[in-house]
Amino acid sequence: MGGVLAGMRVVEGSAFVAVPLAGMTLAQMGADVIRFDRPQGGLDAHRWPVTREGASLFWAGMNKGKRSLAVDMSRPEGQEIVTALICAPGPDAGMFLTNLRARGWMDYPALKAQREDLIMVSLTGTRRGEPAVDYTVNPSLGFPMATGAEGSTEPVAHVLPAWDCIAGGMVVNALLAAERHRLRTGRGQLAELSLKDVAAAMMANLGIVGEVLANGVDRPKAGNALYGAYGQDFLLACGTRVMVVGLTDRQWRGLVKVLDMQEAMAGLSQRLGLDLRAEGNRWAARKEITAAFAPWFAARTLAEVAPLFDAAGLTWSVFRSFAGAVREDSDLTTDNPMMAMVHQPGIGTLPVPGSPVSFSDLERMGPVAAPVLGQHTEEILGDLLGLGSGQIGRLMDAGVVAQGIRPAVRAA
Amino acid sequence: MGGVLAGMRVVEGSAFVAVPLAGMTLAQMGADVIRFDRPQGGLDAHRWPVTREGASLFWAGMNKGKRSLAVDMSRPEGQEIVTALICAPGPDAGMFLTNLRARGWMDYPALKAQREDLIMVSLTGTRRGEPAVDYTVNPSLGFPMATGAEGSTEPVAHVLPAWDCIAGGMVVNALLAAERHRLRTGRGQLAELSLKDVAAAMMANLGIVGEVLANGVDRPKAGNALYGAYGQDFLLACGTRVMVVGLTDRQWRGLVKVLDMQEAMAGLSQRLGLDLRAEGNRWAARKEITAAFAPWFAARTLAEVAPLFDAAGLTWSVFRSFAGAVREDSDLTTDNPMMAMVHQPGIGTLPVPGSPVSFSDLERMGPVAAPVLGQHTEEILGDLLGLGSGQIGRLMDAGVVAQGIRPAVRAA
Repeated sequence: MGGVLAGMRVVEGSAFVAVPLAGMTLAQMGADVIRFDRPQGGLDAHRWPVTREGASLFWAGMNKGKRSLAVDMSRPEGQEIVTALICAPGPDAGMFLTNLRARGWMDYPALKAQREDLIMVSLTGTRRGEPAVDYTVNPSLGFPMATGAEGSTEPVAHVLPAWDCIAGGMVVNALLAAERHRLRTGRGQLAELSLKDVAAAMMANLGIVGEVLANGVDRPKAGNALYGAYGQDFLLACGTRVMVVGLTDRQWRGLVKVLDMQEAMAGLSQRLGLDLRAEGNRWAARKEITAAFAPWFAARTLAEVAPLFDAAGLTWSVFRSFAGAVREDSDLTTDNPMMAMVHQPGIGTLPVPGSPVSFSDLERMGPVAAPVLGQHTEEILGDLLGLGSGQIGRLMDAGVVAQGIRPAVRAA
Repeated sequence: MGGVLAGMRVVEGSAFVAVPLAGMTLAQMGADVIRFDRPQGGLDAHRWPVTREGASLFWAGMNKGKRSLAVDMSRPEGQEIVTALICAPGPDAGMFLTNLRARGWMDYPALKAQREDLIMVSLTGTRRGEPAVDYTVNPSLGFPMATGAEGSTEPVAHVLPAWDCIAGGMVVNALLAAERHRLRTGRGQLAELSLKDVAAAMMANLGIVGEVLANGVDRPKAGNALYGAYGQDFLLACGTRVMVVGLTDRQWRGLVKVLDMQEAMAGLSQRLGLDLRAEGNRWAARKEITAAFAPWFAARTLAEVAPLFDAAGLTWSVFRSFAGAVREDSDLTTDNPMMAMVHQPGIGTLPVPGSPVSFSDLERMGPVAAPVLGQHTEEILGDLLGLGSGQIGRLMDAGVVAQGIRPAVRAA
């Protein structure tokens, strides 16, 4: 039943994407992850998308399988509770993830004074501690100006909070690496990273900084073409759009063969003086290649091309809308062992993913619903902090903590 | 000197983004990561971006700080060398990351027979083992149809290989989690994930699957607007475009105050009957808000607005091209402690990032150049596999392995 991280306990003080995702990633591998929020909910309590009734599908998505403590951190008693929870004893505890602004009582030195070997991972917007979100990091580094139709000068931001998702993975990396270090040395530490640095590093890792400096050029917008090799979208006779990829030599040869374009490509190669076996030459000749391929696609329907492409093992896909994907893609349904139908209080019953990773030594953990805000307040105060029911009752009456009540389930 | 993962040894058989990025993430935290490739280079040896001379800036970016073994895996002796390396003894070894198609000799059962507690992380395209890349996963799940100008029906793919980058982080998560499990139980295992599942899970985690099912609607394209709250791009008088964000209440109030739009927003709120303190109402009123704000921006230059925005602590950014970011953004220069000037053989000297994470118990590791293909073949065969120089010489003569020679550094 336990996951690969069974026994590990992590406390999370967070909002929005990266740190909540990090905590959930750990929870979905079996860690006991406790997220604390103020009783009225964190900054992301109502983050879109929401249901028509205003329940946050985002919050439910990003906090699955965690326990929730509702506590007023503006009160000294609330700060003491959170500190005690973060610094609780035990070799598998004493780990804290946060992207909240570290105030005096919640910064690393203050917490370390309570538990010397604490591991804390802190994500900020920029390395200087300024606020930043995906929507600002992305334009500042140039991605929207390289996205969209060739020839356009309008910036196009991507809708996926990609930097946040990447940073969330980094937060998990840092925590697990620091815990490994603590197991060997007994020493805890503060691991710090920023959303902007994660993005800046990735931009350089992908060769984009080098491309500017070594070649002295800006990458132009190139629509949906696969950069630096061949890959293009085509409209079929049935109106469906497909993406086909000729990145590797095998993919390229497979594509040309299925389209029966060997002679056409040989002629094109000769005419342009470009050996199309070299991926960069396919990029240079992409418009001519696309012009040669387009009539083939325009004359066929998806029902005709799909079996041909699949039989040949091509790398390709259809373009769908989100709703089309939910309707048609079995990877988003319970056909996929990653997914299960889960009742999410206040929202309904939906196909919900667990961890994308399956571990052969362990049963795959099914997805677990997100908690209601404060759902586990009593059990956390009682079982983990050893408070008696009288103490807990007084804290509740005083509004220092709150117990959440699960709303009724409605049909989706 | 050593990083947080000092002592750990990981073998990587990979190409392209996700698994190379995973290996590099480990190397940049101090692990000894050995990537093996065939002597002519892997499928990504020439991946774009490239220099004018054809050196892959991508490969150099994704393999920093690793050791490189060049070995012909089509030969039985080559397979024996790779197997011995993956299954080498030691509590901190016996870890293998791959996205290569598992052939008989390199699949988990065959390797496990050589080392019972092997940890192997295997990334495939889809959960069925089909090929998939970011360029195909993304259209299949609907992101390009939700990206781009409002009203447009053209799909716009993002240019960042976001799913690959997210999957790379997951590969690291899985490895570190499995190693933690092995330390406690003595048991190794196979961790499996697919690029498509990583993307499908994230789509659901972000609430997008729930949005389709609960609300029965497809999210429309909304240009560069921040979904579900307020955030918009504006053109300044100087021609610079900026993004401003009013996601949280604090951000929204700060923005309205700096623009001196309190009365205008109160009037708009009344006229529309929408309390703009609720983030969803800001989304509903975004066009009216943008219309009210636009003249303010159109009348001012960046030199005027930047100090105002920074003084107020707003969440905002300018839009740059890649070249503009490299030129103007100090986070991409050695002003940033994450970055250092590094000589990359065959490319030149460039600002190069190390890990975005700094660990307080350890000195920050500086970035290390990527190896030349096969640069460490001799030392790996000698030091790790205990082969004598005669044996190594014979393997080289037979073409089973190859030693790389670092090319001269040219000026960038």
